[in-house]
Amino acid sequence: MSIKPLGDRVVIKKIENEEKTKSGIVLPSTAKEQPQMAEVVAIGSEIDKDEKKKDQLKVGDKVIFSKYAGTEIKEDGKEYTILKFSDVLAVVE
Amino acid sequence: MSIKPLGDRVVIKKIENEEKTKSGIVLPSTAKEQPQMAEVVAIGSEIDKDEKKKDQLKVGDKVIFSKYAGTEIKEDGKEYTILKFSDVLAVVE
Amino acid sequence: MSIKPLGDRVVIKKIENEEKTKSGIVLPSTAKEQPQMAEVVAIGSEIDKDEKKKDQLKVGDKVIFSKYAGTEIKEDGKEYTILKFSDVLAVVE
Amino acid sequence: MSIKPLGDRVVIKKIENEEKTKSGIVLPSTAKEQPQMAEVVAIGSEIDKDEKKKDQLKVGDKVIFSKYAGTEIKEDGKEYTILKFSDVLAVVE
Amino acid sequence: MSIKPLGDRVVIKKIENEEKTKSGIVLPSTAKEQPQMAEVVAIGSEIDKDEKKKDQLKVGDKVIFSKYAGTEIKEDGKEYTILKFSDVLAVVE
Amino acid sequence: MSIKPLGDRVVIKKIENEEKTKSGIVLPSTAKEQPQMAEVVAIGSEIDKDEKKKDQLKVGDKVIFSKYAGTEIKEDGKEYTILKFSDVLAVVE
Amino acid sequence: MSIKPLGDRVVIKKIENEEKTKSGIVLPSTAKEQPQMAEVVAIGSEIDKDEKKKDQLKVGDKVIFSKYAGTEIKEDGKEYTILKFSDVLAVVE
Repeated sequence: MSIKPLGDRVVIKKIENEEKTKSGIVLPSTAKEQPQMAEVVAIGSEIDKDEKKKDQLKVGDKVIFSKYAGTEIKEDGKEYTILKFSDVLAVVE
Repeated sequence: MSIKPLGDRVVIKKIENEEKTKSGIVLPSTAKEQPQMAEVVAIGSEIDKDEKKKDQLKVGDKVIFSKYAGTEIKEDGKEYTILKFSDVLAVVE
Repeated sequence: MSIKPLGDRVVIKKIENEEKTKSGIVLPSTAKEQPQMAEVVAIGSEIDKDEKKKDQLKVGDKVIFSKYAGTEIKEDGKEYTILKFSDVLAVVE
Repeated sequence: MSIKPLGDRVVIKKIENEEKTKSGIVLPSTAKEQPQMAEVVAIGSEIDKDEKKKDQLKVGDKVIFSKYAGTEIKEDGKEYTILKFSDVLAVVE
Repeated sequence: MSIKPLGDRVVIKKIENEEKTKSGIVLPSTAKEQPQMAEVVAIGSEIDKDEKKKDQLKVGDKVIFSKYAGTEIKEDGKEYTILKFSDVLAVVE
Repeated sequence: MSIKPLGDRVVIKKIENEEKTKSGIVLPSTAKEQPQMAEVVAIGSEIDKDEKKKDQLKVGDKVIFSKYAGTEIKEDGKEYTILKFSDVLAVVE
Repeated sequence: MSIKPLGDRVVIKKIENEEKTKSGIVLPSTAKEQPQMAEVVAIGSEIDKDEKKKDQLKVGDKVIFSKYAGTEIKEDGKEYTILKFSDVLAVVE
């Protein structure tokens, strides 16, 4: 991963529908805030240095985030989203 | 429960109408903010570490929250809502 | 009262018009913010622990609040409102 | 006065036009913010305990406030306004 | 001057056009924010007690302020404006 | 210069197009925020006393600022703008 | 580079499409926030003095930023953007 997020941002990669079905979690397409599942691929240095935040999120975590949060980019044909720690709603264990 | 909320968020599961009738609480459908009843199924780690908040809410509590707060997701056919501690209005004892 | 408000919220029960007339206070129906009278039935734990706030409000107090503040619920046929301490305008002594 | 304002609010009673003329102050009806004159009848306890605020305002003071600030109520046929300390513009000495 | 401004407000009296011409400053009528010249006639006690602010403004100073700031009142036929310290743009020396 | 800006404001004098061309900087007229070049003619006392800000800006500096920031005034036929330190984007060295 | 950004601003120079293709990162033109790539050419002194920020960004870094952030200027025919540290989303390594 060649993208290093600034501040307390993270970079995430959306998870395809097949994977979501396996984990048993379905995100309804009609939901008000349109949540989506993704995998964390990079974490900003301010999260690592924050006592409260660093234990809550690590690279490789599967997360739920709001569809309208963050900025989408593409690298080598894969789609990523850069968003703030506070826009990650939950980790799916 | 395989969903771990981030920050001071909680995951709640809506309570069906029959249960509400048993507890004697009726939430009017015409209310301005449309409150709803739910049961807490997971609590974010920042609530557990907050001196003020940790004693006010625990897993299993029945709570009232505003219908328009939070993000809805589905896991194994059950509907959950991820919302912030500050969007939980009250605990029904 | 089986409803415990969270944070610095209070639960209040609206006072009927006859009572208002007895206390000599009339809240005009045309007022810009539409104030209403109510009795405090429960107080959140963060108010009890706040040095400044705890002496200003207690269960049983008659209060004036803005009609558009808070969330309405019903328990055993009685109507209650859950609102924040800062939305209570005054205590009627 | 049986109304005790909460927080840093004050209760004021509007002054009739004859009184305003006596004091020599005229508040123009076309002013952008529509200021009004009133007399302070009650002061919230947080003002009394605030080092900066307590010396600036006391019961009996004649004040100028913005017409659109606060909430109007009636007690025994008299009209009062409950508003925040910060909405009182000036004291007329 | 019988008006004592509250908080960090000041009372100012607008300066007529002849005076402005003498000082060599012309405030264009087409400017976006419509600045105006005035003389300070009273200063709130919180300005006098603020280390940073007290040396910047005193009664008698000629100041430039934004036309749309503050509240206009009249006393003995003279027009005054009550506005916040932060709405005074500059002192003309 | 007879205008002393209050707080952390500065007074600047717009630079004519010929000067801009000499310095090699062209500010495009179609830019979203319409930046402009100016020279600093006065600095508020709160900037001089602020450890962080005082080394970044001094009288005589050529600066870039957003066209829509600040308030325009005229003194002896010259046009000035009073604006906040935070609205000065950069110094041109 | 003759432009010194104020506060925690940076000056960046947009990267042409050929360069982006080489690095393997493609920024989709239909993205909601329209991210763009750029190279950092100057950094404000408040970033250098901020313990948290100074290690995250240096002159020469390739960065992703939101297209609608900042102010565009031209110097010697080259186009630059002045924007705040918080509007830089990520560094591309």
